[in-house]
Amino acid sequence: MMIDPQAHLDLLAKPVGSLGRLETLAVRLATIQQRLDPVTMPRRLVLFAGDHGVVAQGVSAWPSEVTGMMVAAIAAGRASSSALAKAHHCDLRLVDVGSIAPELADPPGFYARALVAAGTQDLSLGAAMTMAQFDAGWAIGADEARRAVELGYGVLIAGEMGIGNTTAAACLTGLLAGAAETGRGAGADDATLTRKQAIVAAAIVRAAPLLADHPRAAIAAVCGYEIAAMAGFLAEGAALGATLLLDGYVATAAALIAERLRPGTATRMIAAHQSAEPGHRAALAALGLEPLLDWDMRLGEGTGALVALPLLDSAAALMRDVARLDELALPGAG
Amino acid sequence: MMIDPQAHLDLLAKPVGSLGRLETLAVRLATIQQRLDPVTMPRRLVLFAGDHGVVAQGVSAWPSEVTGMMVAAIAAGRASSSALAKAHHCDLRLVDVGSIAPELADPPGFYARALVAAGTQDLSLGAAMTMAQFDAGWAIGADEARRAVELGYGVLIAGEMGIGNTTAAACLTGLLAGAAETGRGAGADDATLTRKQAIVAAAIVRAAPLLADHPRAAIAAVCGYEIAAMAGFLAEGAALGATLLLDGYVATAAALIAERLRPGTATRMIAAHQSAEPGHRAALAALGLEPLLDWDMRLGEGTGALVALPLLDSAAALMRDVARLDELALPGAG
Repeated sequence: MMIDPQAHLDLLAKPVGSLGRLETLAVRLATIQQRLDPVTMPRRLVLFAGDHGVVAQGVSAWPSEVTGMMVAAIAAGRASSSALAKAHHCDLRLVDVGSIAPELADPPGFYARALVAAGTQDLSLGAAMTMAQFDAGWAIGADEARRAVELGYGVLIAGEMGIGNTTAAACLTGLLAGAAETGRGAGADDATLTRKQAIVAAAIVRAAPLLADHPRAAIAAVCGYEIAAMAGFLAEGAALGATLLLDGYVATAAALIAERLRPGTATRMIAAHQSAEPGHRAALAALGLEPLLDWDMRLGEGTGALVALPLLDSAAALMRDVARLDELALPGAG
Repeated sequence: MMIDPQAHLDLLAKPVGSLGRLETLAVRLATIQQRLDPVTMPRRLVLFAGDHGVVAQGVSAWPSEVTGMMVAAIAAGRASSSALAKAHHCDLRLVDVGSIAPELADPPGFYARALVAAGTQDLSLGAAMTMAQFDAGWAIGADEARRAVELGYGVLIAGEMGIGNTTAAACLTGLLAGAAETGRGAGADDATLTRKQAIVAAAIVRAAPLLADHPRAAIAAVCGYEIAAMAGFLAEGAALGATLLLDGYVATAAALIAERLRPGTATRMIAAHQSAEPGHRAALAALGLEPLLDWDMRLGEGTGALVALPLLDSAAALMRDVARLDELALPGAG
């Protein structure tokens, strides 16, 4: 039996439509979950880390070593994602699928090391990874989704840490959503941006001819291990019935992969925010998603999704906990 | 000693500025509280209820009886505000300062009845209330703020329930912010809107000449008891050092009163959202406030502030719980 969340909202003890976009979100959430009492707890963020060979070309404001140092900061519970996950009661897992960093000395229980390889190849010189490596990254993400759903997490967030990964994301966004704008990522200056734009444009030209017949090959040519893992995580999470809260630009690139390889994945997604990266809106539009927040955020690490997460709690509470007008015996409008 | 929240944010282990408007909010919160570890718990919403004589002129889609019925729904924990307050760990109090409803049969502990009078006079025929009545409403709100601060609530929200109160709010917004647009409130149709606009315009013409020399008289002419109480609540809350999270159109009308009679009150406010009511943005601009959400909400009951409340939790967590770059010994940008 299909539910009708909008009809339910219109019966509640409030003027019809008076909660605006919160109602739109409540309808989306209830539709994804096919229940009028949608559930937003417990929820889990899985952060996937990886490094990018293309950083050697000077596309980032930061060196690749920062990936490992931020992994260590997340493992120590001191990063932006740590703070926001704690604030909003979101479980956090951290999976290193491809950084160049050495193993953590004293890893916490929420950390796992499952390297496909220590960094991708330089996508400006050839394929960033083999198809087998892409599949391996995807499988790690899919495993994480299965584990999360088995443990009862119904709302899943994919996050990432990877210096250089907005370059890969720009290639993927161009390839899969036709949006060729390339932005500054985590703070690229003008010269860095110019290099990045040229590399992205050239990489898209090389990968695009493969897309129709060999989509995995085209994607692997410009992907990152953490992005492949996020794509597998999103696709498998959707297949297992989870609600997916989508973070920013890089997560959306992973979502484009997931939707391309497992069509229908996007029907279980809610877009947390419109990132400051210029290609993001086109990528969301390609997925049929409307962002909840437009707050000029561009940090990654799942932070945009964590900031938006309580908006889902509000939407669920509205749908689930408010009395119907007929239960209160209010007089009709007059 | 003055703190410098922006300088603190710029030292954190993330690209400078990469959390966009969350950083702006974090700076605002820290500046209001003058601490780098801002506090957002515990928090309290006080809902003030009142009825409006002008409803007799057909300015609302709903009869005045709905105020009492919604008060009963809130008292029973079944309203939109009940659901959202519970979802976000916000204490809720409900104070009837002027409804026409009979006393509740079995009132909960969070409810108080402190009527200034059972409904205002019709503001289209004369002053809605006397200055003494305005002062009485204000004092009830100020008492609530004192009680809340004494109990340790550091973040305060003023909310309202009152059929017809967007008419009073439109008069106040015109009077105090020069914004004469009148909207549909809780669902007025075209004929209702036309009546409402004419009544608001005429009331502003009558009250405006009093404003310079007798501001309380001008305000009392078009006010509601719940709005007077909210104004006192906001002014006293600010004076006692609370952080004020401002709800929508009617709450902002109360904020305009508070700022007029106690200048400086607005410096402790954060605007939760831009309401669907057309005059709201001008009212916020008059207070120097930029709304966090633009979600087309227009329910009242503090619901917009409750939806935005966890955004403050995110901002506080960012400011308070994220490591500085120098603590992690990250390599510099290169």
